[in-house]
Amino acid sequence: MVIEMLSTGDEVLQGDIVDTNAAWAGQQLAECGLKFARRQTIADDLSTLVSVLDECCRRADWLLVNGGLGPTSDDLSAQAAAVLLDVPLELNQFWLENLKRWYANKQREMPESNIKQAMLPVGAELIDNPIGTACGFAIVHHDCQVLFTPGVPSEFKQMLSQQWLPRLPKGDHAPIKRFFTFGLSESGVDQRLQQLVLPAGARLGFRAARPSIEIKVFAPSALQSALREVHQQIRNILGTELFSEDSGDWAALIQQLMLAKELKLACAESCSGGLLASQLIKVAGSSGYFERGFVTYTNLAKQQMLGVSESLLTHFGAVSVEVAQAMAQGALAHSDADIALSITGIAGPDGGSDEKPVGTVCFALATETQCFSQCLQLTGRTRTAIRETAVATALDMLRRYLRQQPMWGEYDLIKRIREEQS
Amino acid sequence: MVIEMLSTGDEVLQGDIVDTNAAWAGQQLAECGLKFARRQTIADDLSTLVSVLDECCRRADWLLVNGGLGPTSDDLSAQAAAVLLDVPLELNQFWLENLKRWYANKQREMPESNIKQAMLPVGAELIDNPIGTACGFAIVHHDCQVLFTPGVPSEFKQMLSQQWLPRLPKGDHAPIKRFFTFGLSESGVDQRLQQLVLPAGARLGFRAARPSIEIKVFAPSALQSALREVHQQIRNILGTELFSEDSGDWAALIQQLMLAKELKLACAESCSGGLLASQLIKVAGSSGYFERGFVTYTNLAKQQMLGVSESLLTHFGAVSVEVAQAMAQGALAHSDADIALSITGIAGPDGGSDEKPVGTVCFALATETQCFSQCLQLTGRTRTAIRETAVATALDMLRRYLRQQPMWGEYDLIKRIREEQS
Repeated sequence: MVIEMLSTGDEVLQGDIVDTNAAWAGQQLAECGLKFARRQTIADDLSTLVSVLDECCRRADWLLVNGGLGPTSDDLSAQAAAVLLDVPLELNQFWLENLKRWYANKQREMPESNIKQAMLPVGAELIDNPIGTACGFAIVHHDCQVLFTPGVPSEFKQMLSQQWLPRLPKGDHAPIKRFFTFGLSESGVDQRLQQLVLPAGARLGFRAARPSIEIKVFAPSALQSALREVHQQIRNILGTELFSEDSGDWAALIQQLMLAKELKLACAESCSGGLLASQLIKVAGSSGYFERGFVTYTNLAKQQMLGVSESLLTHFGAVSVEVAQAMAQGALAHSDADIALSITGIAGPDGGSDEKPVGTVCFALATETQCFSQCLQLTGRTRTAIRETAVATALDMLRRYLRQQPMWGEYDLIKRIREEQS
Repeated sequence: MVIEMLSTGDEVLQGDIVDTNAAWAGQQLAECGLKFARRQTIADDLSTLVSVLDECCRRADWLLVNGGLGPTSDDLSAQAAAVLLDVPLELNQFWLENLKRWYANKQREMPESNIKQAMLPVGAELIDNPIGTACGFAIVHHDCQVLFTPGVPSEFKQMLSQQWLPRLPKGDHAPIKRFFTFGLSESGVDQRLQQLVLPAGARLGFRAARPSIEIKVFAPSALQSALREVHQQIRNILGTELFSEDSGDWAALIQQLMLAKELKLACAESCSGGLLASQLIKVAGSSGYFERGFVTYTNLAKQQMLGVSESLLTHFGAVSVEVAQAMAQGALAHSDADIALSITGIAGPDGGSDEKPVGTVCFALATETQCFSQCLQLTGRTRTAIRETAVATALDMLRRYLRQQPMWGEYDLIKRIREEQS
């Protein structure tokens, strides 16, 4: 079965919009054990649209077309479909009523130009769009089933999930199982998993989103029960380097662990500058455990907000295990939290030295009775990459602490310079 | 002149990687007054690669191929080019030496598998890659100039900028001029710019990255001097709704304005939870003006860290102009800063009420002598969108203050419920 996708629009082709719809659609197909044979992007030009549609329909069994359903003059998808089928466009009374209701609900007059969105090729099947003004539609050409979908990502995703994927003949496959590691290199993960014995028909996939690596297990559904053993083997092999299964969302994981233990968290951040707090607060319900954050970017702020002593800063420098400890302990003392996390480091591109190069970052996790701290040499080409890795590393300390696992990950991507426990 | 792009690789096709290289390449072409006629993505499969390459070469004058130059068995681009040209692969001694040096510099043995990266089709022109192990190469087929480039974004971008774009025949065009607005809808911008008189051959382009809109002016180079008048008209029409020209980077703009005035900034954040601080600190050199941040997610934190009174919180609620004012004034009092910005709001999806629905966000900007505050109803479908718009709105207040412009933007995308000045 050949499935293709055609994205239309000058903004996509010229790169003003990154085509995340196409990537999302590819992922959804993979979940169903299917895949695109080809994806294309072309401009808003009627004759090109018609000829490329025809070309795709000759090759493919299923074609997903995205974009060009808006009310403006450069939205040409319906017209192109009509030319392709050699039929006129006709007013779809059902969708026109729908549009009028849509505008009435918003207490606005429907602009004339929107009538265009109810004009469909004669014989096309209307596909509902419950959250927007652009309906989809389906046609058949050269035995190819073609679905036209709106470009707005939320509308596209809903239409794809509810109207297109259920129509596709499913592959005979088990749901994809996912494992997430932190701090290991691709070759490190690969080497560890060499010893894995996979049943015939099953295969592994990797996705590197440094410093995390996602391991995916693909298999036909007949292998489902045999796979349980494989999953257990993967857990055993990765040990505590495995931080999560099924989802790699750090913030959701931390929230679940913190809420389960009814603990409250405070953060003290220097180089990450609020990124740690911001990532945690991204998840709704984070108020259940996130107590407060200190963005202590200057030495004065570290002293005044966290009580870090001037002598520590002078003697060891702001980027030191000692200051990280004092920051976490200060955050604990100056908050209502049970656990405090701190990050202080050199995110670059300037500020590095021979002794403490760019990427040197110190971390501490403090509770009333304990303090764990470490100094790492993070890799990453940019300031942003170093800050993001620093945040993930701090969260890796926290999940290890909350799960009572060994605190020091066997990272091979990241060099540990020093670790302390008191 | 027809220019096409072909991206290869299962990870791209299946959406594990979002194809940012393609978007970036499209933008670079636009800067040169050129554009892609078509972009395609196909899987790592030799016969498909060869036939699609042949198909592209028959249509295009220039073809950019991305990916498939790595050392592993699914990297097939060089082999496909050899089949296409009906020539063998041969070892490129120059690149082999280069690879050996690369590994020697890293004090590592070169793996056998990397020799593959020095195997090029006979007659191909080697294209240098100064920052990676995958060299590019160029061939000609059906009179089409084909360049093969590595998939790693940094390597791809460097090769494109330095080796491909200079080879392309340039369109006769002036550099694209960009204007950035905040808080206006697309139709609002469109309506305002109706009165603009463009010289023949010039045109406008829009890119909506809500709540910002980028306006681009494209024109042939002959119009360059006439365009100065157009640019000035745009400035006059947009007035202070224009927040920036040439770059839409808020953080860089704020940094430049703050450093020029030698002022220091503190932030007090509730619903944005560190996002404001984090976005500012993203830019290197932010330590020159960013003093500290308070992430006061709980009422207790607002009281203890900023001195917001319990009676204000009880009487007006945490999301109120009164509390926003107290947060900004508290941040000023509890820091070494000259200006403090505060954000407190309901990011959702829960927590809204009839009186204060999700998206209600209050802001204040305080200095030693003044306090500006407002309550807005932000639009945005998600928690993340609301938090991001809140941060941009706070920064819009700050740039208006620093430039001594009217503090209350004429937003048509965002409803202002209340404003105060003292």
